[in-house]
Amino acid sequence: MAVMDINADLGEGFGAWTLGDDAALLQIVTSANVACGFHAGDPVIMRRVCRAAVAGGVAIGAQVSYRDLAGFGRREIDMAPEELTADVLYQLAALDGIARASGGRVSYVKPHGALYNRIARDAEQARAVVAAVREYDPSLPVLTLPGSAVHEVADGLTVVAECFADRAYTPEGRLVPRREPGAVVHDEGLVIERAVRMAVDGVVTAIDGTDVPVNARSVCVHGDTPGAVGLARAVRRALVDAGVEVWAFAPPR
Amino acid sequence: MAVMDINADLGEGFGAWTLGDDAALLQIVTSANVACGFHAGDPVIMRRVCRAAVAGGVAIGAQVSYRDLAGFGRREIDMAPEELTADVLYQLAALDGIARASGGRVSYVKPHGALYNRIARDAEQARAVVAAVREYDPSLPVLTLPGSAVHEVADGLTVVAECFADRAYTPEGRLVPRREPGAVVHDEGLVIERAVRMAVDGVVTAIDGTDVPVNARSVCVHGDTPGAVGLARAVRRALVDAGVEVWAFAPPR
Amino acid sequence: MAVMDINADLGEGFGAWTLGDDAALLQIVTSANVACGFHAGDPVIMRRVCRAAVAGGVAIGAQVSYRDLAGFGRREIDMAPEELTADVLYQLAALDGIARASGGRVSYVKPHGALYNRIARDAEQARAVVAAVREYDPSLPVLTLPGSAVHEVADGLTVVAECFADRAYTPEGRLVPRREPGAVVHDEGLVIERAVRMAVDGVVTAIDGTDVPVNARSVCVHGDTPGAVGLARAVRRALVDAGVEVWAFAPPR
Amino acid sequence: MAVMDINADLGEGFGAWTLGDDAALLQIVTSANVACGFHAGDPVIMRRVCRAAVAGGVAIGAQVSYRDLAGFGRREIDMAPEELTADVLYQLAALDGIARASGGRVSYVKPHGALYNRIARDAEQARAVVAAVREYDPSLPVLTLPGSAVHEVADGLTVVAECFADRAYTPEGRLVPRREPGAVVHDEGLVIERAVRMAVDGVVTAIDGTDVPVNARSVCVHGDTPGAVGLARAVRRALVDAGVEVWAFAPPR
Repeated sequence: MAVMDINADLGEGFGAWTLGDDAALLQIVTSANVACGFHAGDPVIMRRVCRAAVAGGVAIGAQVSYRDLAGFGRREIDMAPEELTADVLYQLAALDGIARASGGRVSYVKPHGALYNRIARDAEQARAVVAAVREYDPSLPVLTLPGSAVHEVADGLTVVAECFADRAYTPEGRLVPRREPGAVVHDEGLVIERAVRMAVDGVVTAIDGTDVPVNARSVCVHGDTPGAVGLARAVRRALVDAGVEVWAFAPPR
Repeated sequence: MAVMDINADLGEGFGAWTLGDDAALLQIVTSANVACGFHAGDPVIMRRVCRAAVAGGVAIGAQVSYRDLAGFGRREIDMAPEELTADVLYQLAALDGIARASGGRVSYVKPHGALYNRIARDAEQARAVVAAVREYDPSLPVLTLPGSAVHEVADGLTVVAECFADRAYTPEGRLVPRREPGAVVHDEGLVIERAVRMAVDGVVTAIDGTDVPVNARSVCVHGDTPGAVGLARAVRRALVDAGVEVWAFAPPR
Repeated sequence: MAVMDINADLGEGFGAWTLGDDAALLQIVTSANVACGFHAGDPVIMRRVCRAAVAGGVAIGAQVSYRDLAGFGRREIDMAPEELTADVLYQLAALDGIARASGGRVSYVKPHGALYNRIARDAEQARAVVAAVREYDPSLPVLTLPGSAVHEVADGLTVVAECFADRAYTPEGRLVPRREPGAVVHDEGLVIERAVRMAVDGVVTAIDGTDVPVNARSVCVHGDTPGAVGLARAVRRALVDAGVEVWAFAPPR
Repeated sequence: MAVMDINADLGEGFGAWTLGDDAALLQIVTSANVACGFHAGDPVIMRRVCRAAVAGGVAIGAQVSYRDLAGFGRREIDMAPEELTADVLYQLAALDGIARASGGRVSYVKPHGALYNRIARDAEQARAVVAAVREYDPSLPVLTLPGSAVHEVADGLTVVAECFADRAYTPEGRLVPRREPGAVVHDEGLVIERAVRMAVDGVVTAIDGTDVPVNARSVCVHGDTPGAVGLARAVRRALVDAGVEVWAFAPPR
């Protein structure tokens, strides 16, 4: 039987600023990537989201990032590996402690933004992230891009690939870069159809029309606009209607 | 037999900036108040100090603070209790996670600077700090000032008072405020003598010449100047020479 | 003839986060209180708002604050006067330089949030703010609360009082504190009527039913919700319809 | 007659943390690269250094940086040009305003650390820095590396090269990268000799033994250790003794 997890970024406000609809997303996703304070997320928000995730049975993931509030973690930073390891360890520890105090635990790690993209191709930074997770708890899986360098340097860590129903794929199963034409699928019906096909058949139609396998245990959805939340909800409903078991890839602990 | 703990602030650098001599202090103290990133301390420093503390058998304390790098946590901030609880929880969790990854655990909590002073007289903020510690781990003691409001709102938490060999005391057993004349004892021989008397006899000569009881299980020393480190070393030696057992009040876990 | 300025807070986003509708407000206000980076506002936003304000003939005010992004400048901080003076000077200089580079100048200073309230009653901090403005440019007026301590310590600076059409007044002409019942006027028609009366007759009906004089040259409006923008627009229209000249109290330079 | 400027980084403390000996350096240098708050330097320090520089007749330069206190501006950040322009503009404006309030002006701009190195080879970021300086005041020169990409994108700005008496040069007149053997000259006598030769003859002996021209109007010295300050003082004395006029390349305004 087909099984799929749905993950989204949550807790990405800071102080007086809000971003996304955490309450709505917690009704939809099975895995919440919770910001840890370095690109977004303050302790009040982290505690609120952890409590709600625990109450709702949603898995909590540490959405670790470069330290860059002004850039929302979207700018690559050339850090020494030792610094990156320590920064990831700090964020992971902070969120896990708040999750424990809320009756739960961090179940997985998903690097955010520029860090997510950087470690997909930079083995040194990927190793630094892996080192932090291993040092904290080697049983925690890392959620990442198919083909990411993280897979190669995992050193025993479980690495789980996610897929994107609204992104075009190359025939090699990689994402088409955003700057290229056709990189984003805007038709909502098509997004839903692709999500179901990824879950049920394990394939997606690449940009050249061929089918490529998608070895993904989680599909990433967005929630930063009302439209995005509605689409995420529709994706979940379509998966359920297609008989897919929508379960967290790393169940709440 | 007399028993006394020696505590000092450690890990108070940030990035390129250093403050104090962590390596020297770890040879002297039995309890290290480790900065958690809000007034000082970055993840690299926190990890280094935790590893060294574990290696040296020194107890790790969470030196939690207001979020104020520019003011080094020395400025009182009027925070809502919910915000303060979440900020303390975040710092405590981050340090404890790093301590665990280093083979140890946080053994106690010591609020820093303006927060330390504020919660000595502000029951609402004191309650907010207590709530964070209880939420994280109700077995963790809080190290604080004799007569602090924390004692009154402890709600089951263990509250441990510390003493200061270089500070004058009122006949009521409180510290003479720094702005008053004679508040600080500068004579090193006298500081050492007072430390020994506090440990062996449990009393200190107050500013009016009377002896007052000091119900303290830990003596606070400083390490931010070469002279301070030398004095801290001399205090430890004098305690040992006087037959005092120098042990952590909350042993490393 | 009656003259009134309309001021509002602008540029209060940060990085990926937005707050309020700057573009709409710039069509309504004659004075823009632009955040300077300490509670909100990043350099990209500051530059964009300054350019738009210059293009629209709107006066630029420096909305200086405590350094507190996490608290949005809403938490009082016990700062040494020298630190506060330097922090205000830095923010004022940064915004004025960006305004100059955009073809304009800062025309006035309006402290934000907790600083605004603190200096209304704390003469020491009020003096520290005044010192910064005097040091930078003693011709710049400060926009503040009627009855604020700033008036008493102004030391030659021009201090301009503002009024609030949606806030209740005491018979002494002070604002009724927000925590008291009836502090905020929710009826939009009444808000508009009060704004017009403040501008035309220079009085407002206090909470006890008596009329009190309002010596204000500017009325403060809000723009952080769609409803607030609509109300601000209605206030402006009503003032114009009543024959009030809507002009900046400190014209764009 | 030979003329040379001596520049050094100043004001690189932050809050409770100090770095370098600003007072000593102000007796030695003719140009002070003052940190502007993004990698180091808080408003109190900036104001103190500006006042002392004005009193001592030392030119004030804006030492602009990436926003990175935790990394001391030593980590390259992939920023959009518009963001970098705004960040540089903000820092330059803040320092210039404080300098004006102190009776002086910013006389030049010297990017710091990773930004300095990045714009030596990245024309896009170099253009973004140039755009900020031009927007603020196109008469301000930029102090940079010989061969830096800044020279090529200067767009009318004056670009001034500096030299380093303690660094090895390639036969092409570039600095030997720090990671290569022999990159740093440790012999103090040799450093002094090279400084004098650079000033008097305009040449330096490259790492292959050939003489290469050094088209530099300023020599950079360091002050972050007691030894560094002593060497800087010796360099200045040797220049004066050799008949070199030690003058700021961009005189105090």
